[in-house]
Amino acid sequence: MKKRIRLIATGGTIACMPTEHGLAPGLDAAALLQYVNADTANVDCIDLFNMDSSNVQPEEWRKIAEEVVRTAEEYEGIVITHGTDTMAYTASMLSFMLRGIHIPVVLTGSQYPIAYPDSDGRKNLLNALLAAEELPGGVYIAFGNAIIKGCRAVKTRTTSLDAFESINYPYVGMVANGRCYRLAEQSVPEEASFSFALDPCVALIKLVPGTSPALLESLLDCDIHGVVVEAFGLGGMHNFRRDHTESIRRLIAAGIPVVLTSQCLYEASTPDIYEVSQALRDAGVISARDMTTEAAVTKLMWVMGQTEDPEEIRALMRKNLCGEIME
Amino acid sequence: MKKRIRLIATGGTIACMPTEHGLAPGLDAAALLQYVNADTANVDCIDLFNMDSSNVQPEEWRKIAEEVVRTAEEYEGIVITHGTDTMAYTASMLSFMLRGIHIPVVLTGSQYPIAYPDSDGRKNLLNALLAAEELPGGVYIAFGNAIIKGCRAVKTRTTSLDAFESINYPYVGMVANGRCYRLAEQSVPEEASFSFALDPCVALIKLVPGTSPALLESLLDCDIHGVVVEAFGLGGMHNFRRDHTESIRRLIAAGIPVVLTSQCLYEASTPDIYEVSQALRDAGVISARDMTTEAAVTKLMWVMGQTEDPEEIRALMRKNLCGEIME
Repeated sequence: MKKRIRLIATGGTIACMPTEHGLAPGLDAAALLQYVNADTANVDCIDLFNMDSSNVQPEEWRKIAEEVVRTAEEYEGIVITHGTDTMAYTASMLSFMLRGIHIPVVLTGSQYPIAYPDSDGRKNLLNALLAAEELPGGVYIAFGNAIIKGCRAVKTRTTSLDAFESINYPYVGMVANGRCYRLAEQSVPEEASFSFALDPCVALIKLVPGTSPALLESLLDCDIHGVVVEAFGLGGMHNFRRDHTESIRRLIAAGIPVVLTSQCLYEASTPDIYEVSQALRDAGVISARDMTTEAAVTKLMWVMGQTEDPEEIRALMRKNLCGEIME
Repeated sequence: MKKRIRLIATGGTIACMPTEHGLAPGLDAAALLQYVNADTANVDCIDLFNMDSSNVQPEEWRKIAEEVVRTAEEYEGIVITHGTDTMAYTASMLSFMLRGIHIPVVLTGSQYPIAYPDSDGRKNLLNALLAAEELPGGVYIAFGNAIIKGCRAVKTRTTSLDAFESINYPYVGMVANGRCYRLAEQSVPEEASFSFALDPCVALIKLVPGTSPALLESLLDCDIHGVVVEAFGLGGMHNFRRDHTESIRRLIAAGIPVVLTSQCLYEASTPDIYEVSQALRDAGVISARDMTTEAAVTKLMWVMGQTEDPEEIRALMRKNLCGEIME
């Protein structure tokens, strides 16, 4: 590496070693770096925590963001090793927390522990370091050969090495033959604006046919401050026999913002086209449009950390903050 | 068509006409059939209901299944027009209800109303009729050029014409040049065994980082009899700070079966590999393995309609009933 890069380790499969209770994180950042087949003299290591990413929660997002900002002036790029299971959520949240950061922050990990002979960890970590040298400021995931905008990534495969996809947005770049190529021009970040405040009390509800309105209304008793609903198709919910529209109205009346997204992985949702969802729009749901569910959930948490005003929440959710939604 | 085919219309986009409140189902089966560019003299029509599929619920699944069985002896194939939004759920549930049916039952629909000049409805309906002439007994979705096993279909795109994918299973067939080709050999159905009993009180919970255990435990007060959890990656949940394992134990202790699946669209989940999920396995969760979420939810509803015995529920959930799970 020619540039000064910071490697922040947080655990994950890439750092896992076998234990008697199954795989659990074990290797630190320096140990991970030893596996990279390149000159890493310019890479400084730090171990932030050592967790399976199924346990990474809003408290860890904040820790990571604080560490990035603490050292962003000293380095030209940051690589974060992280478990794959919630990496897309972390990358989305960091995209909001670190809006306009002037250096690249590249998350990576692997499907198999780096210590395994055929692990994808060595290539992924090298690719992330190369991406951190090449990309403009912003938050990204480097995985397999793909470089994905952080707020557009979704883990779509439980075991294959191409575990992440870029959803409703072009791939930012790819790595081939030891070089990182940019595929889509990224806008140069405007002035940086860091804010780590968030409200973690957001529930994600994925509907199935027959979902009881009582399930939605039970959120009123659960200390939930915001709701994202993964509805059917373009954004449909039951309005007959089990009437979800009325439950959604009650949530909104109680001051709980409700964001409507689709359980379809690809393409945008909108409540504007069908009769079953126009009533939801009129009830005041906020459409997630082409945002991923991961971005919609983390954005709602972050936005509710910035303001408690319902109209400001609505306006921020609709606004493109870091490329997560089409204007 | 050379064979005797029954066309059952249930509404959906394919039958939609513009209204002042947005698109709503309007055309009946005979009207739909007029748009098909083929000899349909052998096709008999029936209108079962006329609904946006966002409103299709367990009660409608039963109606459809009863109608299929009522006339299955008179026809050699059945085509069902249906909205796309919940078609994968309906096809999954019909796969369980109509296990071993000796004739093909083919669901189809469209992304744009058949009355629109560029609609995909005309081709999809023709393809479904061709599939109903060609395929062996079973439940399928015909959409775009693809023929998908009913219990393996997921709607992955909100607007494109190739809206459905076959998940963790080969495509059954394709339609090209007005002919239906089989791509994967389907096992000839064993003895038919129809059962329409189900328990609709199943909740689907999709985790996000920070999900409160209180949300899981609130299901105890919601008249919920079974739970499917879309967990992280191979099946991870928080077991630190917000401990989901303990909440899952409480649900299971209360007699509520908990099925664990992944929020990754592709590939199987298993609680066997990581420390964070082995505790869930030991607590008694049932792994959905390679089932789609749609199949896991409808199968749990159906299985709970067949038996109340926890061990029988567990055994049936693990057993391959109609190709929905790898043995």
